[in-house]
Amino acid sequence: MIDYPAARAVALVVQTGSFEKAAAALNVTPSAVSQRVKQLEERLGAVLVERGIPCTATEKGEWLCRHMDHVSLLERELTAHLPGLVDPTAPVPRVTLAIAANADSLGTWFLAAAAAFTQGCDHLLNIVIDDQDHTADWLRRGRVLAAVTSLEKPIQGCRVTALGALRYHATASPDFMARHFPGGVTADALAQAPALTFNQKDRLQHDWIRRTLGRDIVLPTHWLPSTQGFVDGALAGMGWGMNPAQLVRGHLEAGRLVELVPGAILDVPLFWQVSRLAADQLADLSRRVVATAKRELVPPP
Amino acid sequence: MIDYPAARAVALVVQTGSFEKAAAALNVTPSAVSQRVKQLEERLGAVLVERGIPCTATEKGEWLCRHMDHVSLLERELTAHLPGLVDPTAPVPRVTLAIAANADSLGTWFLAAAAAFTQGCDHLLNIVIDDQDHTADWLRRGRVLAAVTSLEKPIQGCRVTALGALRYHATASPDFMARHFPGGVTADALAQAPALTFNQKDRLQHDWIRRTLGRDIVLPTHWLPSTQGFVDGALAGMGWGMNPAQLVRGHLEAGRLVELVPGAILDVPLFWQVSRLAADQLADLSRRVVATAKRELVPPP
Repeated sequence: MIDYPAARAVALVVQTGSFEKAAAALNVTPSAVSQRVKQLEERLGAVLVERGIPCTATEKGEWLCRHMDHVSLLERELTAHLPGLVDPTAPVPRVTLAIAANADSLGTWFLAAAAAFTQGCDHLLNIVIDDQDHTADWLRRGRVLAAVTSLEKPIQGCRVTALGALRYHATASPDFMARHFPGGVTADALAQAPALTFNQKDRLQHDWIRRTLGRDIVLPTHWLPSTQGFVDGALAGMGWGMNPAQLVRGHLEAGRLVELVPGAILDVPLFWQVSRLAADQLADLSRRVVATAKRELVPPP
Repeated sequence: MIDYPAARAVALVVQTGSFEKAAAALNVTPSAVSQRVKQLEERLGAVLVERGIPCTATEKGEWLCRHMDHVSLLERELTAHLPGLVDPTAPVPRVTLAIAANADSLGTWFLAAAAAFTQGCDHLLNIVIDDQDHTADWLRRGRVLAAVTSLEKPIQGCRVTALGALRYHATASPDFMARHFPGGVTADALAQAPALTFNQKDRLQHDWIRRTLGRDIVLPTHWLPSTQGFVDGALAGMGWGMNPAQLVRGHLEAGRLVELVPGAILDVPLFWQVSRLAADQLADLSRRVVATAKRELVPPP
């Protein structure tokens, strides 16, 4: 059996960033918290908390924290049926639900659904951002309970719902187009014109080129891991990049941005995968995610 | 002596994400690239490239890639003085400069300076985002050549310039205020009302509370690692958080957001630190960063 008081101490140190604050939340002394954490670390033979300002979880510590989040969620459900289980005078710990979304979904439609969900309950959300091709890994490793992902195939132990597709336009400023594509968007020009790439996981620019020109091109690129930064960078003439339709519609209409190849869109189908363990507790979130996606995304290609 | 052709192959595999694309860029066969990378890995006794889709750098591989970026930058300067050194018919490799900035600077003022710099030269930028208290670490470890940081003390081997301060307002929606702070922004109410926290490194909400109420409070919080997400989350009534003045000015004027405590601002002083090794090559970027900061930031407190 896991030493739950010690595990809760680890989770609180990580959540609050310090042993002192965790102690205040538990209403014990900092040295009591320190002792609980240390004992658990000695039993495991592994460091769980990286001492620093703030204190953070090691990789093993992260696993324990996620476990504690999931256990809290299950406890909540249980105590609704067996209220006698808990001391009615003790404060009920708030549940933090870890979910993963891609940055472009968060920057366009996802947050509206998440915010609406938080207003209907007192759960807290830990929103993890990763590439749509990689959020499924977070779910697979049990680090999150649900994810917006490009993966259609259900992850083991998960339910999947199709959300529609996020539409992208390859965009740049008119000035950038004049400077780098005076003779049109050719393979030679693309091999010279700086692109914007979110990070190493971002294949959207390459996917668009392959679909539009039918071949691969090694792109010179700026690295800019920010959804809004992509739009701002394109507006400022820094590079061209794939931007979600929602964020560039106004700029395209006003002529501040133009499409590299008019009408050459890229639609990225997205799916909502939820751990079966948490599907009931996340039913309201799932409903809101699906409804918002239906309004904001396009039908899948 | 480092095996530079092999090191360059590693850098290109990481940059393009695949052995095939690196081979195309080097005009050799993929198996030649694979052999160069493997030989270097064997000599080092360490994996440099994580084979996958895309191929990415391991931590040791990252070090090598940064080294290659820095060497390219120095080569550029040298060949300006000794043009005979390089084969005039070979394409000149583009230089990628790694620089670090905090997300809120990127989301408000920094990108304008970066974009202006890229238009005056053909260098590419690799913009790394981290908390303003942690960007200095990237510089210290030689992973970037320059950084926007809250650290005033010069890092070894770096020049430092004061930029001014980024002003923050503690903001929430009027609806959120009515729901969570009907009796005012008290310590008890703050211990119940969900805050927004960027990530574990983000101490701004705590700093603001300490300065405003003179004490520490353990905050229930949503985790939301996105500058624009913070504004959107506040607007949607998800939580309260510290938002840069530039991003909420319009919302405050229109009453879509309100300050938790009117006039209780938090100014975060920022500094530009540049590696002396690259100070000359980055002189134009430094000039633009300082000029933009002067326009957009407030005088330090």
